[in-house]
Amino acid sequence: MFQEAESDPKLSQEEFKKIETKLRVQLVNEQYRHIHLQDRALLILVAGIDGAGKGETINLLNEWLDPRHVHTIAFPPPADSDQSFPTARRFWLNLPRKGEIGIVFGSSYLQLFNEAAKKKLNADTLERNIQFIRRLESNLVANGVQVVKLWFHMSRAAQHQRTEELLANPSTAWQVDKHDLKAQKKFKSIRRSGQLIIEATDAPHSPWVIIPSADPQLRAVRTAQAVLQALKAPSIKVPPFHDPASAPPVRKPVNPLEKLDYTATLSKAEYDEHMLNLQNRLALAVRNKKFKSKALAIVFEGADAAGKGGAIRRVTHAIDARQFNIMPVAAPKDSELARPYLWRFWRHVPGRGRVAIFDRSWYGRVLVERVEKLVTRATWIRAYEEINDFEQQLSQHNIIVLKFWLSITPDEQLKRFKEREHSPYKQFKITAEDWRNRRKTKAYSVAAKDMFTHTNMPCAPWHVISANDKRHARVEVLKQIVLALEHDQT
Amino acid sequence: MFQEAESDPKLSQEEFKKIETKLRVQLVNEQYRHIHLQDRALLILVAGIDGAGKGETINLLNEWLDPRHVHTIAFPPPADSDQSFPTARRFWLNLPRKGEIGIVFGSSYLQLFNEAAKKKLNADTLERNIQFIRRLESNLVANGVQVVKLWFHMSRAAQHQRTEELLANPSTAWQVDKHDLKAQKKFKSIRRSGQLIIEATDAPHSPWVIIPSADPQLRAVRTAQAVLQALKAPSIKVPPFHDPASAPPVRKPVNPLEKLDYTATLSKAEYDEHMLNLQNRLALAVRNKKFKSKALAIVFEGADAAGKGGAIRRVTHAIDARQFNIMPVAAPKDSELARPYLWRFWRHVPGRGRVAIFDRSWYGRVLVERVEKLVTRATWIRAYEEINDFEQQLSQHNIIVLKFWLSITPDEQLKRFKEREHSPYKQFKITAEDWRNRRKTKAYSVAAKDMFTHTNMPCAPWHVISANDKRHARVEVLKQIVLALEHDQT
Repeated sequence: MFQEAESDPKLSQEEFKKIETKLRVQLVNEQYRHIHLQDRALLILVAGIDGAGKGETINLLNEWLDPRHVHTIAFPPPADSDQSFPTARRFWLNLPRKGEIGIVFGSSYLQLFNEAAKKKLNADTLERNIQFIRRLESNLVANGVQVVKLWFHMSRAAQHQRTEELLANPSTAWQVDKHDLKAQKKFKSIRRSGQLIIEATDAPHSPWVIIPSADPQLRAVRTAQAVLQALKAPSIKVPPFHDPASAPPVRKPVNPLEKLDYTATLSKAEYDEHMLNLQNRLALAVRNKKFKSKALAIVFEGADAAGKGGAIRRVTHAIDARQFNIMPVAAPKDSELARPYLWRFWRHVPGRGRVAIFDRSWYGRVLVERVEKLVTRATWIRAYEEINDFEQQLSQHNIIVLKFWLSITPDEQLKRFKEREHSPYKQFKITAEDWRNRRKTKAYSVAAKDMFTHTNMPCAPWHVISANDKRHARVEVLKQIVLALEHDQT
Repeated sequence: MFQEAESDPKLSQEEFKKIETKLRVQLVNEQYRHIHLQDRALLILVAGIDGAGKGETINLLNEWLDPRHVHTIAFPPPADSDQSFPTARRFWLNLPRKGEIGIVFGSSYLQLFNEAAKKKLNADTLERNIQFIRRLESNLVANGVQVVKLWFHMSRAAQHQRTEELLANPSTAWQVDKHDLKAQKKFKSIRRSGQLIIEATDAPHSPWVIIPSADPQLRAVRTAQAVLQALKAPSIKVPPFHDPASAPPVRKPVNPLEKLDYTATLSKAEYDEHMLNLQNRLALAVRNKKFKSKALAIVFEGADAAGKGGAIRRVTHAIDARQFNIMPVAAPKDSELARPYLWRFWRHVPGRGRVAIFDRSWYGRVLVERVEKLVTRATWIRAYEEINDFEQQLSQHNIIVLKFWLSITPDEQLKRFKEREHSPYKQFKITAEDWRNRRKTKAYSVAAKDMFTHTNMPCAPWHVISANDKRHARVEVLKQIVLALEHDQT
């Protein structure tokens, strides 16, 4: 794999001059096509032997391209406040928008591979990390982010020589850092781990390109060619990760809606008593010292008029308004459409000690977008695993994820729609669209059933609640939240 | 001013019930009008005596309004990484977008007044801070952010009683914090400072409303009424801060363009020598330890084809691509139009140790937007002081602000336009709009002259550079940057 690169091939000044002009014209023209089309983003991931000239080459790429539409991002060790969030959040929020080019050095995601390769991980962990990266890349490409990965490589002797030459000249010595000096000692292990990771994560839709780096001119040309090829490549159709025939992975069907008891009710007196007790406990739990290192993400889904808004108010009543944020989820805006689907939800992940409430959520993709045929079958099937990976990352970062499905019968919904039309507070809540959606109750039930089957993970369980009686539903929601927090704090 | 509030007026349960229903219907209906119109944002600033029930009332407001379009923001002491930026940045980035409501507790901006009032500042500093706040509020309103300020007040005895009652009940004791307990001792000084600041910063377009807070029901009603009134108020035309007759403040005219020597040139040999020297010095300066606590914001303005892009490349050549960010400034996008003009530039203020390069900038308002009549005369006149305040805040936060105007003669511009049309690298750089803009050279000269007159501050000086000779211009730009950094580091 590294044979060519380790032979340290060179390009003469003459050959370079001949290629350079044409290459630069092609590159800038392809970039402008990319900017104008705005049909995808290009993400360039940079890795390789330390001291192989990665930084220098990326600077040159910035000069050859129109640098105003190139964003070079390094991920230094996270600052204190960044650790308030899962590390992957920085990667997501920095993804280039369609029409732009992002160059990423040492993302948490590349760190992940380096770690996986260098440390003595057991084979299971390594395999799990590799599979996670493969899914992530496949999902990025399917979400309109073209991915190309560059590995800068040269022989050990050439690496030594380059470092020495840079150090010898005071005007270039600053380019050498401690990693470059260590690379000599660790050459073999870096080489071995690089090979392992490249083999495991090379894919037609997110290929690795090995850049021979001993000669600066050949290195520049090969890098530019790799970027050019990525810019010119037609958009790639990526099959869902699990099944090329667009079927979700096989899981035992779960349908909590079937056995739901809609007769559950609470009297006013019972409700008042429970509510007072639960709201006090919630107030204490979110003010508990232990909660300062945690966070809470609550998802509300369910049919129109199922009582999501009312339940949310009973929850927020017990929390200081400065501690929570409610995110009403509607159709994505332009800036959101220019990024992968989960980007806008990553933006609203709660920081430490905070509560984020989603009034509808990332499940829109497998509910309304599926039912209304706003996305392809392959897209919503892929979304189950994307969502599971997302929630798992939240959970691993001490964010408690609770998902509520408020369920009402069609008759009850009809009754509520009619009431809304006559209530001065609630008129604004009922629109023609709500009446239209009602006709698709069956399709939504099928989508909900599939959703429960594929996304009911132990780390982010669904709570399906009978909501024909509002008091019962509100008390149940509060109870589940309080129990989850109290369980976590004991 | 506090007479009514300190008489601790009450509302009977019966009266409250009568008012409540109507008020809530009005409130939610006005909020929906606000959401649908999207013609402005509403910013509610919350202040007052500690322990007067601010938090409780804001929670109630969240229940009475549709909380999904209300964002309650507290500004705790900044985290480490926030201190990487001027404190005002958090305030700006959290401004509600048009159609939304933002409730702000203890913003850096309110802290500013509290400090101004409490500490033994000299009269000049206090007056300067007050004037800054007055300009900021006036500018926010003129930028589509309606401002209403609430001061929660009650008698000292009532404050004491309320705190004791909350403490006595285990389910409400958490509502009392140390500030509430201290308020008894500091009652008089809080009262005095409140009075001073309210008088100094009350304005028709951003009024203070005193909320009598001893009785929770009256407090709720008065708060809701204040919000309702703000939502119902017609958009207010705010005159420029300095002059109701829409004239900029009187300053001695400065026109560096007049005496500019366009004959300055550099030979290829001189250029290469200077450039190598300056780029090396720049490389060292941005890698200097001292730069880690600073930042650099560089603005490039000038006519089309003046050589901004070429100059930027010579600057970035010496800087690691991971350390700088280039922001190309074009017409604002939807999400930017929904916020005050400077919002998008606050987003791109460089963090500590970083370089932000603006290819065109916030000066667009007093250049293209003025010349093309995209904004009113009052708006661009107001912008001079908005911009000066903005740059002053950057400078106070250790951000070195350098502004370059690259100047070319009309003949040279014509020559370059023609060259661009025939260059394979540069075809994309020339559009019909460039030819149109050329016809407005005079209007741009007048706008530039006014801009130099009103925004050439010692903390953020303009460097006007003759750019008919590209080599000369690039060397001059590098030289000014290097000198500013080296001067700062010695």
